[in-house]
Amino acid sequence: MSKLKFIALSGTTEVTENLYIYEYGDDMIIVDCGVGFPEHEMFGVDLVIPDFTYIKENKHKLKAIFITHGHEDHIGAIPFLLKDLNVPVYSTKLVAGFLEDKFKDHGVKNYNINIFNTKDDEIEIGPFKIIPFSVSHSVPDAAGFVIQTPEGKIFHVPDYKFDWNATVGEKFDVAKAARLAEGDVLALASDCLGSTTPGYTESEHSIGHQIEDIAREAKGRIYFTTISSNISRMQQAINVAEKLGRKVALVGRSIDTKAEIARQVGYLKYKSQQIVRRNKINKIPANQMMIIISGAYGQPGSNLYRLAMGEHQYLSLDKNDTVIFSADPAPPGTKENVDYIVDRMIEQQVNVHYYQLQEDLHTSGHGSQGDINMLMGLIQPKYYIPIGGTIRFMRAYRDLAVQMGAKEEEVLELLPGEVVEFENGNASRAGSVPSQNVLVDGLGVGDVGKVVLRDRKKLAEDGIAIAVLQIDKKEKKLIEKPDIISRGFVYHSGQKDFLDEVAIELAREIGKSGRVEKKSARHVTIDFLEKLFFEKTGRRPMVMPLIVEV
Amino acid sequence: MSKLKFIALSGTTEVTENLYIYEYGDDMIIVDCGVGFPEHEMFGVDLVIPDFTYIKENKHKLKAIFITHGHEDHIGAIPFLLKDLNVPVYSTKLVAGFLEDKFKDHGVKNYNINIFNTKDDEIEIGPFKIIPFSVSHSVPDAAGFVIQTPEGKIFHVPDYKFDWNATVGEKFDVAKAARLAEGDVLALASDCLGSTTPGYTESEHSIGHQIEDIAREAKGRIYFTTISSNISRMQQAINVAEKLGRKVALVGRSIDTKAEIARQVGYLKYKSQQIVRRNKINKIPANQMMIIISGAYGQPGSNLYRLAMGEHQYLSLDKNDTVIFSADPAPPGTKENVDYIVDRMIEQQVNVHYYQLQEDLHTSGHGSQGDINMLMGLIQPKYYIPIGGTIRFMRAYRDLAVQMGAKEEEVLELLPGEVVEFENGNASRAGSVPSQNVLVDGLGVGDVGKVVLRDRKKLAEDGIAIAVLQIDKKEKKLIEKPDIISRGFVYHSGQKDFLDEVAIELAREIGKSGRVEKKSARHVTIDFLEKLFFEKTGRRPMVMPLIVEV
Repeated sequence: MSKLKFIALSGTTEVTENLYIYEYGDDMIIVDCGVGFPEHEMFGVDLVIPDFTYIKENKHKLKAIFITHGHEDHIGAIPFLLKDLNVPVYSTKLVAGFLEDKFKDHGVKNYNINIFNTKDDEIEIGPFKIIPFSVSHSVPDAAGFVIQTPEGKIFHVPDYKFDWNATVGEKFDVAKAARLAEGDVLALASDCLGSTTPGYTESEHSIGHQIEDIAREAKGRIYFTTISSNISRMQQAINVAEKLGRKVALVGRSIDTKAEIARQVGYLKYKSQQIVRRNKINKIPANQMMIIISGAYGQPGSNLYRLAMGEHQYLSLDKNDTVIFSADPAPPGTKENVDYIVDRMIEQQVNVHYYQLQEDLHTSGHGSQGDINMLMGLIQPKYYIPIGGTIRFMRAYRDLAVQMGAKEEEVLELLPGEVVEFENGNASRAGSVPSQNVLVDGLGVGDVGKVVLRDRKKLAEDGIAIAVLQIDKKEKKLIEKPDIISRGFVYHSGQKDFLDEVAIELAREIGKSGRVEKKSARHVTIDFLEKLFFEKTGRRPMVMPLIVEV
Repeated sequence: MSKLKFIALSGTTEVTENLYIYEYGDDMIIVDCGVGFPEHEMFGVDLVIPDFTYIKENKHKLKAIFITHGHEDHIGAIPFLLKDLNVPVYSTKLVAGFLEDKFKDHGVKNYNINIFNTKDDEIEIGPFKIIPFSVSHSVPDAAGFVIQTPEGKIFHVPDYKFDWNATVGEKFDVAKAARLAEGDVLALASDCLGSTTPGYTESEHSIGHQIEDIAREAKGRIYFTTISSNISRMQQAINVAEKLGRKVALVGRSIDTKAEIARQVGYLKYKSQQIVRRNKINKIPANQMMIIISGAYGQPGSNLYRLAMGEHQYLSLDKNDTVIFSADPAPPGTKENVDYIVDRMIEQQVNVHYYQLQEDLHTSGHGSQGDINMLMGLIQPKYYIPIGGTIRFMRAYRDLAVQMGAKEEEVLELLPGEVVEFENGNASRAGSVPSQNVLVDGLGVGDVGKVVLRDRKKLAEDGIAIAVLQIDKKEKKLIEKPDIISRGFVYHSGQKDFLDEVAIELAREIGKSGRVEKKSARHVTIDFLEKLFFEKTGRRPMVMPLIVEV
């Protein structure tokens, strides 16, 4: 008899690249396949994707990928997997729209997306039956799953909150979840990211009133920015604009594309005369315009960034304008970026509403402690598996479960790649599978590793000094004095004398040993320059000898 | 007749390097002289200090430096100024202790510190009379000043809050401030950093109960960490330890030094038998020990960092231990560092209390909107000058003043270096003085500028590729094929073939133009490699041709 395997293949970045494996005998399904974002000291890295080694080794078992919702940390890595494997993807309609757009960007042509509804669809894949139900989140058409297996049923509920007043999309279908939870539930794998936040997460609904209060006072144009997948936030902004007699323009590729997909599947609703195209914006009086614009995290190069810097092609700020940030700069590095453009806008006397003013212009998509307790109470599983957060959030989630009566060993805090086996209703840990962070940098996937990152860090901090030495091969001596060139170390043209003096000292040092051999000259150069540079400047640039034998 | 000049010489970093100039005729005094911390993209920079150009140009006028309190952003740049100018410093007793320690570190030997008390001292310097009064802040012995000038009196009140239950040091002497404010007040220059935070800032007093609640439950050792200058927090921890029968050890140079200075001047109080030396720690049962340890911001290399990583010389974590962070990781980059060590400690099953759990283990030293309103109401100046915060905080401060009845033009939001002149009771703007951020990197002061930072950024993102070309001077052609070496670009040993192939293509490209000249070979190499690397890898390393003529 087979066992049921559950593997959390997510990475260790704070916004985890979600990927969970359910395996039974010769059948395997995946839930979600997302990217992570580069952290602190992952210099130059664009994305982090999960390690597909185990999946590729077992590709004959892989039957399907099930997607819970359309955020990057749940769907972003699919194109990287589908490049090598063609496996059917199951998702809701909105997610399917996002995916098709993504596949176009990545040039993925062979794919097979199957759309399910969260009302009454049930999907059988080998020994698994997957039953979706709707949940509230910061993107519409989000689902949780009950995965029925020969070992029992597991609730898989990533990012969710209980929002009784969700403005767009389905609410959390508590009734269905409760029905499905009847009888024994083997395990609940659910979102732990809100486990350190007291209380319940606020409803999305409350934001609308805030937007309206600000919009009503606005004298000039209103620029409204949010994350492009936050359709509900866009809908609320559009509703306010309509109420106040303002036209709306959508500026930015991601905003434009996602809004159009959401409109097609019926999640974003507006009258067509409400929306104006780019080329009309400047013909409409400022106090009759709202512009929904991309760049809510202040990303350099985004539309909002260019607007703030006075570099936008067709938009410019006026001191009567109002800018509303309806997003919190949570991911690493985003706060600095937002701060930078907010300051530039305030310098231009623009009326800016942003995170620090605490005006309730954003609410999280993740349930807080109250929501987590509620879900636990609703499902009452035998085992608890915190997902979607690093160790700190798992620990806080464990504490919540224990307060509700669970035993510590019934809460499975899984490290990336760790395998849990369920057999006869009992869970046990069974080693782990490869789960390195795979770094994407430009076109390269996985070729940037520890060595490259270590070098980038050193280069970032103190730059590089290159010493070019010419050695006379026959005579075994230096030809002329070495040439030292630096970048990011000292300002070159200002410090030419300094580097020239160092070069003379280096020549003297190398000359000491009599016959000059390539290898020893290399060592002497590194040792001598590292020491000398640190003494003279307090810095430790990368020292690189380049020896040319003539 | 002379005018009174006020200059905010602070930089633009978020934690401003505070330095304010008061000038009348041939007399000038400075209030505070602090450092800023490197921000986002100031790769490798250790500190930011104010631009002393204007002060040095007017050094014959400079009569004194007055210090409000002992934080780095108010005192840290004094050694850099005193290296060139010997000018008397006026401060409270605790600040004097901190300064002497700092001067020792920097090798500053010629200095002249004058201690004032905040009760009844008044200091006359030329046309100025400076009257200090005590304020509450997160370091004891903090002062505000009334500066009486021929043009009227100015209240200079940087970092403060109204803490009616301050546990260490003087409370805000509201009675004295009110007496001094009688009659006309020309201007109030005061802290604006809390101007976006609603309500009043919590009292330091509330923290003690929280620490006690946690300590009472602790089974093993307690590690308590806070900012080394936060004497009040240390005092509260020591009080809790005493109450619960635990000995205390102070681990870390900054904690140790600052605690000793505070003890000597009477701010930190404990019985000598309460404190144990390092070499005794491991002889005392874990549940009878509290260790106050440095590294509250998770700084790599700090004592707490090494403890978390299992690399400390004489301390190691046990799963029964409790770690209490009594500090919020606010400065740029500190959150990532704290997160990192917290996760390592949780992995070791240690009980960690840190910022995200929102257990009220920290309160700000800066007054919030309520405190700011109260100070404005108490002083009722003609002009308001927000200090100690960037433009966003100045704007929010202005809005608070306007709500209280000030006119917008009575609130002077000053850019770094901007000069305000007061004459006949009226303020006017009068240009600005040099106020570049001066970057300190290692031993270098001001030699790291835009070019070096731009290079470091490029190196950090995509590394460097160096192409070594040997040209036959006579024959005007390449000798052998070029050699391409990279760091931080692609993993060298894994990609040797790739770089070799590129080198062959480069040789072909250079050969196309017939005679090979040094200058053109340089251009061709840069253009060709930049384009080729981007096409093949999606990255843009710095390309550096090194041409050796033989």
